[in-house]
Amino acid sequence: MDALHGIDLPVADAMAYAVRGGKGLRAFLVVESARVHGITDAGHVAAAIECVHAYSLVHDDLPCMDDDDLRRGQPTVHRKWDDATAVLAGDALQSLAFELLADAPCSADARIDLIRSFAIASGVRGMVGGQAMDIAAETASEPLTLEQITELQAGKTGALINWSATAGARMSGADIGPLQTYGTALGLAFQIWDDVLDVTGDAATVGKAVGKDADAGKATFVSLLGLDGAKRRAEQLVTQACDALSVYGKDAENLRDAARFVIARDK
Amino acid sequence: MDALHGIDLPVADAMAYAVRGGKGLRAFLVVESARVHGITDAGHVAAAIECVHAYSLVHDDLPCMDDDDLRRGQPTVHRKWDDATAVLAGDALQSLAFELLADAPCSADARIDLIRSFAIASGVRGMVGGQAMDIAAETASEPLTLEQITELQAGKTGALINWSATAGARMSGADIGPLQTYGTALGLAFQIWDDVLDVTGDAATVGKAVGKDADAGKATFVSLLGLDGAKRRAEQLVTQACDALSVYGKDAENLRDAARFVIARDK
Repeated sequence: MDALHGIDLPVADAMAYAVRGGKGLRAFLVVESARVHGITDAGHVAAAIECVHAYSLVHDDLPCMDDDDLRRGQPTVHRKWDDATAVLAGDALQSLAFELLADAPCSADARIDLIRSFAIASGVRGMVGGQAMDIAAETASEPLTLEQITELQAGKTGALINWSATAGARMSGADIGPLQTYGTALGLAFQIWDDVLDVTGDAATVGKAVGKDADAGKATFVSLLGLDGAKRRAEQLVTQACDALSVYGKDAENLRDAARFVIARDK
Repeated sequence: MDALHGIDLPVADAMAYAVRGGKGLRAFLVVESARVHGITDAGHVAAAIECVHAYSLVHDDLPCMDDDDLRRGQPTVHRKWDDATAVLAGDALQSLAFELLADAPCSADARIDLIRSFAIASGVRGMVGGQAMDIAAETASEPLTLEQITELQAGKTGALINWSATAGARMSGADIGPLQTYGTALGLAFQIWDDVLDVTGDAATVGKAVGKDADAGKATFVSLLGLDGAKRRAEQLVTQACDALSVYGKDAENLRDAARFVIARDK
């Protein structure tokens, strides 16, 4: 986190701590979607998405939200520092993401497109809206339907995964269509697999608490489709995602591998 | 808040609630700094700064931060809804601010300049950094010095006021120098006057709790300079701010009025 060098505040340490150690799936999607468009310098954009992903985890882990002690196998930010530092570190990571996008090595028009779509994907019509639906569902009188949970996840995790997959096309001013189809299917497969891991995984491998959703009686893709049904649906979506990339031919093999990884991972 | 129409979530209501009823000083600075550059359509940019200002208040008021029940004479967002909704509403207001800037009616290069400078002013080198210093000061063994509190306030409140004052020049691609001098002096005068009001004001008029800083034994401009000394310093800064606008002649009279308002206000 070069942008944080020389800042002697716990919140800067907390920001750097929060972005370490993830899978890096979103950054990978950015880098690969750029590469298939001939762009090799997507570092700013990849860092931006990981900053916002990290901020969302820091805030989601807060006691007033999911109240988690463990993230990526380490204490959550509010456990290692305190709640105030976690709120501020998340806030500043979101600002930093937009600063990074403003400095992305592509045309000003492309940067504006990146920033606008990123802001929408991060906000109340995207990630935050999905998280708010998730919280509202906890006190709802009836469990969510498959349609509702699909909409929820399209916001909560899907919007940023989708954005990551389209970033390279946006940088080069190309049609985002194929990558958007890929990203939408991939984002949903990703979330279905998270629900599968919540049932089949163990906390030490997954790196965070498991079984919480089932214990809380929340509707999940597994509770709605069954374990086998959920796995089958995820596999169909990964096939859809890979098929959408035909226009890129063999150049997109790494993106296809990423899609296959999403339903092979154990964390 | 047109951007929130049709979103049926408490978090969208909380966002709209959070931005209502402020003084609108920052929006005014944006509109007037645009007007002196011949720009009449600064609504997106003015809305963006008020979104980020509102988000910062919503998060600062949280129990884990300043723990305030009252803001702008009404219950704070976490008191009216809950802590989770307040965290999410703040997060989404920050995203919305960048979306608004991406749609500002000026050149793509100017929008990039607005976004980059706004992200820096909002983040760990600006507002969040100042807030983090403020929190660190609460547990420090010694009260802050005048130099330290000036640095803290330059981040916490100064960075966004300064940005607001320069926004019009940025929109038109003009030299931001005079407005930056104005904005820096104005931001400091604003915070000194906040400290004066914390001593001399009453909660009903100010719209939030008063006397908290003195009760907590925190260093403020009043504790460091005395009440008269603080008032005098604020007056000097307002004179400096007004003088910096000479290049704009009579066109800048509204900006001068805004500076004078900052040390005449009782809330």
